[in-house]
Amino acid sequence: MQLRDMNSIDTVACVGAGVIGGGWAAYFLAKGLRVRVWDPSPDAADKLTRLIDNAWPALTELGLAPGADATAWTVHTDLAEALDGVGFVQESAPEVLEMKQRLLADIAAAAPADAVIASSTSGYGMTEMAVETPDVGAARLVVGHPFNPPYLIPLVEVVGGERTDVAAVEWAARWYDEIGKSVIRMDREVPGFIANRLQEALWREALHMVESGEATVEQIDRSITDGPGLRWPLQGPMLTFHLAGGEGGMAHMLDHFGPSLKSPWTRLDAPELTRELRDDVVAGCDEEAAGRSITDLVRARDASIIAVRKAVAAVRETYPTPGEQDGAR
Amino acid sequence: MQLRDMNSIDTVACVGAGVIGGGWAAYFLAKGLRVRVWDPSPDAADKLTRLIDNAWPALTELGLAPGADATAWTVHTDLAEALDGVGFVQESAPEVLEMKQRLLADIAAAAPADAVIASSTSGYGMTEMAVETPDVGAARLVVGHPFNPPYLIPLVEVVGGERTDVAAVEWAARWYDEIGKSVIRMDREVPGFIANRLQEALWREALHMVESGEATVEQIDRSITDGPGLRWPLQGPMLTFHLAGGEGGMAHMLDHFGPSLKSPWTRLDAPELTRELRDDVVAGCDEEAAGRSITDLVRARDASIIAVRKAVAAVRETYPTPGEQDGAR
Repeated sequence: MQLRDMNSIDTVACVGAGVIGGGWAAYFLAKGLRVRVWDPSPDAADKLTRLIDNAWPALTELGLAPGADATAWTVHTDLAEALDGVGFVQESAPEVLEMKQRLLADIAAAAPADAVIASSTSGYGMTEMAVETPDVGAARLVVGHPFNPPYLIPLVEVVGGERTDVAAVEWAARWYDEIGKSVIRMDREVPGFIANRLQEALWREALHMVESGEATVEQIDRSITDGPGLRWPLQGPMLTFHLAGGEGGMAHMLDHFGPSLKSPWTRLDAPELTRELRDDVVAGCDEEAAGRSITDLVRARDASIIAVRKAVAAVRETYPTPGEQDGAR
Repeated sequence: MQLRDMNSIDTVACVGAGVIGGGWAAYFLAKGLRVRVWDPSPDAADKLTRLIDNAWPALTELGLAPGADATAWTVHTDLAEALDGVGFVQESAPEVLEMKQRLLADIAAAAPADAVIASSTSGYGMTEMAVETPDVGAARLVVGHPFNPPYLIPLVEVVGGERTDVAAVEWAARWYDEIGKSVIRMDREVPGFIANRLQEALWREALHMVESGEATVEQIDRSITDGPGLRWPLQGPMLTFHLAGGEGGMAHMLDHFGPSLKSPWTRLDAPELTRELRDDVVAGCDEEAAGRSITDLVRARDASIIAVRKAVAAVRETYPTPGEQDGAR
């Protein structure tokens, strides 16, 4: 499979210019690329102008690529015109399966034969989205799932479908990495990918708590913003628990608190903590720790919590909540 | 019920001086209080010295109360001596139910009759922990559940048991608030309280994913640190979804994406999205938004993501991961 030399790419296409597609457009522009936008709605250009204008100061603060130009985009209602000669396509149409199936087939037919085509879908698998696309096109279709807003959140989850060529998945992972995203390349299709599965578990537990009167919306949000949410920008949930085990790390934590997995602390049943699962989790944490002791990690965590608290406190002062008292938050 | 005038309190007791109890001690000291520590282990004083020494720079950076003194503590092996005259007791013994039951009864017998006694338990309810304590003591027993490290994470969840006097719960909530914590006062005992239930749902889904080979430990952590974890220090999971609905907010989000609740995106079954649940969630978000438009909230969110990313990037530079390439993270 012959794919575009990514260093030669100067123009990409965004199919769909809503919050996600427009956010991608802003990001690509900040990386010095030119962007062709396909969007059928008559006010697409106006909305995109507003979105890019709003995003540009943030993108500038995070660092623009040489030659980045907030106006280097055009809107098209003709798909073939939008895709002509582009080196990469990001599809961000509404989350309607039939629409995505049709659109991806049309994109695959009209886009250059060496361009990888990525979908921003937040939940569909590429196998089911590609059903209307012939093999030659389906080979270049991948999921490139961003988080909102795509111009600020680094994460992109990359995964192919059954008929996707592994070279296209590799190309997409490298491409996103090259343009500064944090890429998670998945080897198999999992409904909801990774981050959304985790987020969704938390969200569903939260909904159950509201429904049963166990917590209010405000309590749920504050339990995260003023609690574990302060730890997670630096160290994820696994490494966080690695630190909860004291000097014994995750191994100690699992060996001693393993039984609490069976406590009714959420509506989600825990897996059996087999020796194999235990060892996998411990090995994964050791790998992430990369030789740093618990003390090293605690020091970094504490520095991060302080820095994050100060950063958020400053933002709260600039964007105050009406009626909120000054206080502990 | 006669409880101590909190403005008159100059000395508190920490029962148990491990990571959590010692963290509380450091926090109380930073608030200008004197701390009596009860801990039976022979190296308690040494460990506490190290913990406070490590915590003090962070506490200094966040702001010490006038007169705060890192050395204003004593360690005792006699419980009555440790509790003599103190205005408040924070119990942070190991998470062993029988031990907590015995210890809380002993504390209630030895502490001043007007002192509220809080337990740092991360999962037990006060009703089950208080079974060995006579009514007069049980009335002053509350859960005051902190997050690690207690001197940096603001959240404290406060809830009583069946025999706790509501005045003691109120007193504890006000006390923690006065000393600068972010207090969530719960009206009923829920296993795992609030934050741990949410955190536990996420953790269990993560364990399932590792077990089934759907994701690695590193991917799970990065999916949070570089994804939704960047949004949560300012806006919790509920308000985050309020912004995912565009100008229509949470109402639009639930009305349009409600059906995806039934998608197999996590192993946790969702509740039925009844009209009542929908309305409760929407009302909760509107209350949190406090009149701010989605545009206002998006602006604050973006500013926070940028600030948090910069803060974390600086910490990563100071505390580098061995062997990690410079890059998108």
